[in-house]
Amino acid sequence: MFKERFLVTYKIRGCRKDSYAKARDICFEQTVELPDNLVPHGMIREHIIGRIEEFKKYDARCFHAVVSFAAETAGNELTQLLNVLFGNISIKPGIRIEGLQLPGCMLKDYRGPRFGRKGLREYLGVSRRALLCTALKPMGLSGRSLAELAYQCAIGGIDIIKDDHGLADQGFAPFRQRVRLCAQAVRRANRITGGRSMYAANITAPADQITDRARFARECGAGGYLVSPGIVGPDTVRMIAENGALALPIFVHPAFWGIYVVSPDSGISHKVLFGKLSRLMGADAVIYPNFGGRFSFSRSDCVSIVEGASERMGGLKPLFPCPGGGMGLHRVPEMLSVYGNEVIFLVGGGLFTRGAGLVENCRYFRSLVEGEKNIKKHLTKTKNML
Amino acid sequence: MFKERFLVTYKIRGCRKDSYAKARDICFEQTVELPDNLVPHGMIREHIIGRIEEFKKYDARCFHAVVSFAAETAGNELTQLLNVLFGNISIKPGIRIEGLQLPGCMLKDYRGPRFGRKGLREYLGVSRRALLCTALKPMGLSGRSLAELAYQCAIGGIDIIKDDHGLADQGFAPFRQRVRLCAQAVRRANRITGGRSMYAANITAPADQITDRARFARECGAGGYLVSPGIVGPDTVRMIAENGALALPIFVHPAFWGIYVVSPDSGISHKVLFGKLSRLMGADAVIYPNFGGRFSFSRSDCVSIVEGASERMGGLKPLFPCPGGGMGLHRVPEMLSVYGNEVIFLVGGGLFTRGAGLVENCRYFRSLVEGEKNIKKHLTKTKNML
Repeated sequence: MFKERFLVTYKIRGCRKDSYAKARDICFEQTVELPDNLVPHGMIREHIIGRIEEFKKYDARCFHAVVSFAAETAGNELTQLLNVLFGNISIKPGIRIEGLQLPGCMLKDYRGPRFGRKGLREYLGVSRRALLCTALKPMGLSGRSLAELAYQCAIGGIDIIKDDHGLADQGFAPFRQRVRLCAQAVRRANRITGGRSMYAANITAPADQITDRARFARECGAGGYLVSPGIVGPDTVRMIAENGALALPIFVHPAFWGIYVVSPDSGISHKVLFGKLSRLMGADAVIYPNFGGRFSFSRSDCVSIVEGASERMGGLKPLFPCPGGGMGLHRVPEMLSVYGNEVIFLVGGGLFTRGAGLVENCRYFRSLVEGEKNIKKHLTKTKNML
Repeated sequence: MFKERFLVTYKIRGCRKDSYAKARDICFEQTVELPDNLVPHGMIREHIIGRIEEFKKYDARCFHAVVSFAAETAGNELTQLLNVLFGNISIKPGIRIEGLQLPGCMLKDYRGPRFGRKGLREYLGVSRRALLCTALKPMGLSGRSLAELAYQCAIGGIDIIKDDHGLADQGFAPFRQRVRLCAQAVRRANRITGGRSMYAANITAPADQITDRARFARECGAGGYLVSPGIVGPDTVRMIAENGALALPIFVHPAFWGIYVVSPDSGISHKVLFGKLSRLMGADAVIYPNFGGRFSFSRSDCVSIVEGASERMGGLKPLFPCPGGGMGLHRVPEMLSVYGNEVIFLVGGGLFTRGAGLVENCRYFRSLVEGEKNIKKHLTKTKNML
């Protein structure tokens, strides 16, 4: 007992004295929740309380404190790990998690991404180029209309055709009907193109229905799941990811979770939240708003997500970054220069803004990430099918 | 279809022009997620897109926009309701939810608190005075030691003896052993005092274990549940609350959720998050840091939580506010003047800071909310029992 500790880097706002006091407070608040003088001597004082391992200036307003906690405090559960990381101190402004290092004895409790980057490429039959993703929308369309859009996107060569995250089980497009129709439509298109486009169904759902919806989607032939951990809870994603009977690639969406990253002074860094925690949950790809889109992420925020999604974490596979959020097709070349090929480009509304039809726009999207030769092959196969 | 709409009040930072543009953006972002020119005419444009119903200056920096959404967009699910309220816009700084009004056709989908204030009073056999709560801690104690503390607190007349929210299933106090011992200890004390003290077990747990833990706790004779919706997801709380086989009072804890309220400009107001959403989840009491404690909630933040916990919401019962967080016993009289008797006082470490023993301190705590006569009765009953 008490051999291994995990390390959390907190950025703390304040002068040296105040920041150090806050760092010490974190050590108590996140564990014993008692004032120093009430903590019993012996094991609890020696091992349970957090320890400041490092403390240094970060910039003119903030300090970095690396605090270690005994692995045992997190009790082998993602839920309790989150509590030690940011439970009570989420209520205190001016504290932001910037780094997280778990020892091997904790990482072994996590399966991580089932597919990961390599597995997702094999699943989609795409060995090298960047992957393409779009979202079925808008909310309000019928299941039939959404399936027709899905068909056209698959014919146009989009790899991953996902529900918009706002498609749940509303009357205008009930989950079961929509998922059945969309999965069928994409399969039908695949038979024509010879491709392996995937329909990813949104399984963000009530706690007592999410497993059933995932099972239903898989049985219908959906190829993946979309889920919002900020809404269903991160451990619910882990539960789905670890269930072998539900094994499909998982795409996590940032809905309701943005609040953790929007302040530079409070919350959790992009790297830890979208990169590292997504991997602990077992996501295979993480969706987030790209820099220069209609959200406020910076280029370095996005690069840090890629780091968190790929840097070494025991045996956990790297996951795919999936930047989207108001990304027009014209930005693909720039994105390729930032992300390289290890990326999924998510373009939603942007596919409709070019004058040509949806299928043509999808083909154009694909041509941007693919050599001329492959595009011609794809066109020859599908030109008479519409 | 499309007769009823729900109203969300957003506080938006910026000048009039920018704030109005942001309000319009919310109408699209939270529903169709398409730019205006791409939204189809007809039903979607008329009903699905959010509508600005009211727009007015709030203070020198912010405006208030009341936006209405069709009830159908939330599809009768708490998960999708959260998504419409604050899904994508959680990623945009400078937007805060200040109000929420759901029509009857939506509220009827929610059971709300099973016990509520009245039910919890009946359950505990306390008709009028303020209720008393404490937390078993620190993390690191064995189940046996925690049970001994629970026993003393119950002998001392504390109504609700809850696990600290950091007690999960760690090796030093495994869930099953701890819960069995603590429930037994409180029952044993109740036989002596003739009281009805309750042990509330922390069921914040992995998604695939939470229902089992709740069932186990209930079978052991635990009297209530503690759960952190920020960690397990709010709909998981609703699932537990609606399960008749698990029927026990539910106490929700703010761990990992504070980030929604810490900024005055972003997130969700105290009233909506801790008051109204807790009721939708079916919590019977909401724990939050009191003003003047070691967290930064103001007195008016706390009063607004009480409003959200009690104002009319269809047939949903009012829930108990449960302020805690560094609250010493000396503050009880002041608190009574703010909250009146419709409150649960949560004092944790504060029970250890007076020189007397734990039982004496609990009795003193109780005397602060109770007339002399009752205290004497309680003392006579229990004085020879320790």
